[in-house]
Parts: sequence; C-alpha cells; structure tokens
Amino acid sequence: MARVVVDVMPKPEILDPQGKAVTGALGRLGYEGLTVRQGKRFEVEVAGEVTDERLVEIRDAAEKLLANTVIETFDVRIDEV
Amino acid sequence: MARVVVDVMPKPEILDPQGKAVTGALGRLGYEGLTVRQGKRFEVEVAGEVTDERLVEIRDAAEKLLANTVIETFDVRIDEV
Repeated sequence: MARVVVDVMPKPEILDPQGKAVTGALGRLGYEGLTVRQGKRFEVEVAGEVTDERLVEIRDAAEKLLANTVIETFDVRIDEV
Repeated sequence: MARVVVDVMPKPEILDPQGKAVTGALGRLGYEGLTVRQGKRFEVEVAGEVTDERLVEIRDAAEKLLANTVIETFDVRIDEV
C-alpha cells in the first residue's frame, strides 16, 4: 500500500473565514504573531504501486473532486512513510 | 516570515465520514483502488524567526485549538519553502 497526499488550500487572493477565525482565536488565547490559513489534507491509500499513470489519475481526481480550482490550489505528492 | 504547517488527521480507529464520502465518489467516478481519509491542513505564518520556543508554542496551540486530540492526531513541522 502506497500513500499519496493531496493538500488543498484556499488561493491567496480568496478570503479564508475559517483561517481568520482560527487566527483570531489564537490571538485571544495569547498566541501572538501567528496568521493561519486553513485547508484540507487528503491521505489517499493506493492499492498497488504508485506509477506515473496512477499519479496522473490521482491528480485528475484531485482537480475534479477534491479541490474547487476556482478558489483553491492543490498539491499532489507521494508520501514517504 | 517563516511558515509552520500543522496537519490534523482523524485517528485510524475513528470513523471518517468525509473520507468515506470522497472514497465512494471516487469509485463512482471510475477511479478504482483509492481509499481516502480527510483531515485538515493549517499553514501558520510566523512573525519573525521560528525558534524552538516558538515551535513549542505552536505545538501547544495545535493541541489546544487546532486538533481535537480525542479523535484526531496532529503533526507540526517547519515548511521549507
């Protein structure tokens, strides 16, 4: 079993209300100087080997299903466990 | 500006309905042999340098605010940009 990680983050120019809420809460709890943006992390367990074709397929799935590319960027990488 | 990444994932023994939904959707879209678990990714911009003390502070914040350690695990690391 190999694992591929897909990280999905809001684009820099897009407002990130979740991240803003977390940033505010951190400040109120006394953690200063931290600015947070919140995104999603998908851990994809792949049956069999992660070939280049498989990776293309996962990238395709990420673009179609995991990320909304109008407002989010995504990054696909093999996770070295 | 340095960046620290906090990854938060549901514990292995915890049901992950979001991940299950994504796994099901991938199958219906024709992507076979992929099992997904969904978590969160926080990108923390740190004002100033990321010292060891700073990292301890962020780990503390992650444990208190970013992760629910009853059902989630988290990982804090410096992001090499």
